[in-house]
Amino acid sequence: MIYLDNSATTRPSPEVLESFTKASSHFFGNPSSIHGIGMEAERLLRKSREQAGSILQVQPNEIIFTSGGTEGNNIAIKGAALAHQNRGKHIITTAIEHPSVLEACHGLESLGFEVTYLPVNADGFVEAKSVKNAIRKDTILVSIMHVNNEIGTIQPIEEIGAIVKDYPKALFHVDYVQGFGKLPLNIDKSHIDLCTISAHKIHGLKGTGLLVVKNGVRLFSLAHGGGQERSIRSGTENVAGIVAFVKAMRLAKEQQNEAVDKICELKKYLINQLQSMAKVKLNTPATGSAPHIVHFSVPGYKPEVMIHALEESDIYISTKSACSSKSADESAVLIACGKDRSVATSGLRVSMSYETTEEEIVFFSQQLKKVIQKLSEVMG
Amino acid sequence: MIYLDNSATTRPSPEVLESFTKASSHFFGNPSSIHGIGMEAERLLRKSREQAGSILQVQPNEIIFTSGGTEGNNIAIKGAALAHQNRGKHIITTAIEHPSVLEACHGLESLGFEVTYLPVNADGFVEAKSVKNAIRKDTILVSIMHVNNEIGTIQPIEEIGAIVKDYPKALFHVDYVQGFGKLPLNIDKSHIDLCTISAHKIHGLKGTGLLVVKNGVRLFSLAHGGGQERSIRSGTENVAGIVAFVKAMRLAKEQQNEAVDKICELKKYLINQLQSMAKVKLNTPATGSAPHIVHFSVPGYKPEVMIHALEESDIYISTKSACSSKSADESAVLIACGKDRSVATSGLRVSMSYETTEEEIVFFSQQLKKVIQKLSEVMG
Repeated sequence: MIYLDNSATTRPSPEVLESFTKASSHFFGNPSSIHGIGMEAERLLRKSREQAGSILQVQPNEIIFTSGGTEGNNIAIKGAALAHQNRGKHIITTAIEHPSVLEACHGLESLGFEVTYLPVNADGFVEAKSVKNAIRKDTILVSIMHVNNEIGTIQPIEEIGAIVKDYPKALFHVDYVQGFGKLPLNIDKSHIDLCTISAHKIHGLKGTGLLVVKNGVRLFSLAHGGGQERSIRSGTENVAGIVAFVKAMRLAKEQQNEAVDKICELKKYLINQLQSMAKVKLNTPATGSAPHIVHFSVPGYKPEVMIHALEESDIYISTKSACSSKSADESAVLIACGKDRSVATSGLRVSMSYETTEEEIVFFSQQLKKVIQKLSEVMG
Repeated sequence: MIYLDNSATTRPSPEVLESFTKASSHFFGNPSSIHGIGMEAERLLRKSREQAGSILQVQPNEIIFTSGGTEGNNIAIKGAALAHQNRGKHIITTAIEHPSVLEACHGLESLGFEVTYLPVNADGFVEAKSVKNAIRKDTILVSIMHVNNEIGTIQPIEEIGAIVKDYPKALFHVDYVQGFGKLPLNIDKSHIDLCTISAHKIHGLKGTGLLVVKNGVRLFSLAHGGGQERSIRSGTENVAGIVAFVKAMRLAKEQQNEAVDKICELKKYLINQLQSMAKVKLNTPATGSAPHIVHFSVPGYKPEVMIHALEESDIYISTKSACSSKSADESAVLIACGKDRSVATSGLRVSMSYETTEEEIVFFSQQLKKVIQKLSEVMG
């Protein structure tokens, strides 16, 4: 199997799964229980939190474990909006955010908030000056993703953070789901208040993730209850899931150090191959994009047909993002980049992991050529 | 180890953990992906949803998988309140709900909602007539738990449902976390619109649960995004966690059929033993309470001291509910029942599972007597 849909989800690493199983069996206590079995679970949780904090260079208590990226983004956006609506009701985001950000913003609009959706340029970059132009005295939140999940563009987070910091009423949230483990992000230097990460994009388990909530940032809790996770996200902690997630974080950082150059090379090779194919239009810019994502369109060719044709060679890629792949057949991200409808409806995404090999990318390139040729013949 | 804190959390069943591991390894795809690996995961998810629906006698699409009881309660309460605030802003609940309900209601008060906290009688029962007296034309939600997590009282859900149904603007939410797998609850007959269940109370894994959302019930989503779970709870589905949870549900129902009489007998035995101890005051009523929970106080004796003393015999029980055990030393539930402060600050909870044996309860009773006697001597 050549699995190239790692931005949708990754195969859990065996070591991660083993951590989960061990922790589930041996540390099943409720960390809130005051007896020894609870305390053992609590110690394990604390250790995991310290490790996560250390990896992200934030304080351990700034780590809020969640059930994943969507929850993290929703806590950040709705939590900030509902807590600070007395300061203002204006939110800034971009037109190319993940649905969990865009839809959360739409939800807030229905509650009376005003949202500015910043445009992107033709390559899919948000320009820092557009943040500067949009930000107002009643702006309470700026939410901008680090790496776009569809086309892989890296947004100028540090530059944007420098603008937001001059507006002390505005919190800065960054969706770091696609970037973590592939690209560095300095949370403090970028003046980030809220930062989302998900486990299942880095060979962790589904159902786990975290939101960094910097000390001093007040949120309306979406999960009130027993006061776990600094009362921002109550509920019995998924200790085993957290342990497994932190294991995945550590492995991802190790691989980032050791193997990111390898996937950068694979990306370069793949982009060269795609550029040599007459019918292919590349959507991912060669520079300023994440090492693992390559997005392209084959106008006139239905992406589902392409995907199923590649599947016959046991190759798995995707159309756009899994989270929107069952809805409209048009990519909102590509439309925002000003692409023609023919390009926006024929997008295909290859997303690699550190497990991806050169042989796989070579074989994929060959098969893609064959599939396009075969379909061309069929279509006449 | 004699683990009698099963209302805080249970040890995951090996079969449940095996289901999780298998599903994680073999069905790691994102159910939203349109390729074969995604579709396999989607099929497994659909099958799990059908099984959960069948167990609860609701439609499969009425099952919304969540990350646990706290999330389920929050989605139900805040989702209903935020969606229907134009109809009215009045909510009814009780003084003895789980913190995830009480604190969610407090959170809504800070957003301008009005909440009536119904009292309970001396035995911890909510009387249906108090719902009748409190309900108004602007009541949009009635949230009442099935089995109290601390003292085990079973509330008259069917009777209350019959009252709420005459107020078509009011939704009826039931926290069924402690009752599921121990006691039946007919969702339709009780006119329940929203019903919460958690996995880790029934030997499932932490981080999983479900909320029944009856068709036609509109909620403001707390997790906007890719539209998963009928757009009520977006986010990549935790397929393996869901599979494992449904496995735990099936096992729990099997055990309910086969072994509930056994734990009822153990409860009866334990209550008799406690009633024979001069210093012990029973808080759980002998009738109208769940089979697995027995709560009592030993006035004058610090519960933490009792717990640690019992731990020396490898026995694990709790004070009140794990979710509030680190905060105030007084049980809000016992205060609501009108108990003296001496009783409310000295509560101890024994919560059994189907794995609990007669030998364990006999041994626990003996050790409890010894501990009380020993501490009496120390205290003079």
